[in-house]
Amino acid sequence: MTCVFLSRTINLRKYLTNEIARLDGKVNFVDHLDGSNPAAVSMAVGWHPHADAFDHYPNLKAACSIGAGADSILNCPSLRDGIDVVRVVEPAQAQMMSGFVIWNVIYHQRQFGTYLQNQRDHVWKRLGGGRRPSEVPIGILGYGAIGARVASDLAMLGFPVRVWSRSAKPPTPGVTGFNGSDGLDAMLAGSEVLVNLLPLTEETRGILNANLFAKMPRGSYLIQVGRGEHSVDEDILDALASGQLSGATLDVFHTEPLTKDHPFWSHPQIVLTPHDACEVTMTAIGDTILATAEAVQAGVQPKDSVDRSRGY
Amino acid sequence: MTCVFLSRTINLRKYLTNEIARLDGKVNFVDHLDGSNPAAVSMAVGWHPHADAFDHYPNLKAACSIGAGADSILNCPSLRDGIDVVRVVEPAQAQMMSGFVIWNVIYHQRQFGTYLQNQRDHVWKRLGGGRRPSEVPIGILGYGAIGARVASDLAMLGFPVRVWSRSAKPPTPGVTGFNGSDGLDAMLAGSEVLVNLLPLTEETRGILNANLFAKMPRGSYLIQVGRGEHSVDEDILDALASGQLSGATLDVFHTEPLTKDHPFWSHPQIVLTPHDACEVTMTAIGDTILATAEAVQAGVQPKDSVDRSRGY
Repeated sequence: MTCVFLSRTINLRKYLTNEIARLDGKVNFVDHLDGSNPAAVSMAVGWHPHADAFDHYPNLKAACSIGAGADSILNCPSLRDGIDVVRVVEPAQAQMMSGFVIWNVIYHQRQFGTYLQNQRDHVWKRLGGGRRPSEVPIGILGYGAIGARVASDLAMLGFPVRVWSRSAKPPTPGVTGFNGSDGLDAMLAGSEVLVNLLPLTEETRGILNANLFAKMPRGSYLIQVGRGEHSVDEDILDALASGQLSGATLDVFHTEPLTKDHPFWSHPQIVLTPHDACEVTMTAIGDTILATAEAVQAGVQPKDSVDRSRGY
Repeated sequence: MTCVFLSRTINLRKYLTNEIARLDGKVNFVDHLDGSNPAAVSMAVGWHPHADAFDHYPNLKAACSIGAGADSILNCPSLRDGIDVVRVVEPAQAQMMSGFVIWNVIYHQRQFGTYLQNQRDHVWKRLGGGRRPSEVPIGILGYGAIGARVASDLAMLGFPVRVWSRSAKPPTPGVTGFNGSDGLDAMLAGSEVLVNLLPLTEETRGILNANLFAKMPRGSYLIQVGRGEHSVDEDILDALASGQLSGATLDVFHTEPLTKDHPFWSHPQIVLTPHDACEVTMTAIGDTILATAEAVQAGVQPKDSVDRSRGY
């Protein structure tokens, strides 16, 4: 089983050193255009591959992402039908995302930004303990493995949780489900915090825009942990300026690292983190590569393959 | 049923206006030394009463606090045997405390202080997503109604939780119990975050001192949400300076409001909040007053009375 590294942004051989050693004897890793026989390559590990990357490998059957999102592979122009694209699905990653989201939800609910500012100003001012979780409804865009964990944790902490997914999902205790475009409007209208966990597809690109914010209650809070391309940056800034949004936590950006002069950096109502909400572990990536190799060898579809027709 | 307000720090008649109206016809409220017949007074609502307050009311049977702690009544020199001291116990308050503690636990676990500082400096620096909850054991001092809620929520989020109480408590799933002084040392040795939820008694006064911090792993984090008198301020500052503590969240202080020139305000490793972690609701205070009045009338011990022998 020969597997090629396809990335124009990361040295995957270096990044995955320990996993490559662990899979020794099971998967033979080669580098892109290193002189190996391209016809022998039957799978890839990819992250932002070169535009023509897949054209070089006529017998390639599967491509693994190194994260929960596979958009950087799915958007590659040379990706053709018949190649299974595989995401890394790891419960511990969902747990990390959940902790990140919970911190930012409570940051808004309990006005911790005000406390931190008051501390800097040496101002003792009680805020009356803040509102109860039951008074702060949370809307979640996207209800895959990560969204489900975030939703159930927030519900357990007492927050009303409203989740939106493109298609209907089975009901979950303590969580109200919405789907379709009417469902999206209804979900937004009743949510004070919006958590973006959508996959990046042509349908979701630019979804965090003025039109969407206008459907939420005035003073809502955005937690953007999807992909930078979901955001319309100017609309976020306008919504903060008008008060339609009272604040935002932004972890993902159109350009990463975020440019030094971007107005997000010093905006007092923005919490900015460097695309660090959660990462899958190296072990989970290695496990996914191995499972994919075994599936390709057995001639079956790998576990956690993306549905190419819907794009996630 | 006549009830007197006893406080030298709060105008309780003003503070409880709505509840006084709600209890009209059931409880007759009088003010301290307002000319009413003191022999007719059979219960009190108190918060930091005057030292001689109870001497004026020979037939007083019970005194309600207006919070979860009753130390300001228990410490009153004129409080005599035979007066039941009642705390306000409210599940929603435990939930609020839990959210406050969770935010500060994740603040430490995920290094949000570093993120916030990096944002101010316009520095994009990934921290690798931080450690998993399973790698950050939490110790909780005090295991009453509030401690139990904090413990179960943290355990559900994946943190190893170790609770210490003076006497043994029934086991709780996902929570490791410790008790007694040997148990305290063992609990501290294996905890990276310490949450103080103890009642203030003669035994617990000054418990957050250099000796205790030295029993924890180097670089531990303190979350102090008990009473200011639990802290030895100089020892907290010394432990931060030496690196024995990597940081602290302090919500309670010896003097409140905290004096303007206290070094806690501008310490970069301290998160300071104005005794605002949680409050009981006015409704819960009113319910407690009514239940206490009914118990006194029936000649039985009020619910949520303090065990005077242990002091909480």
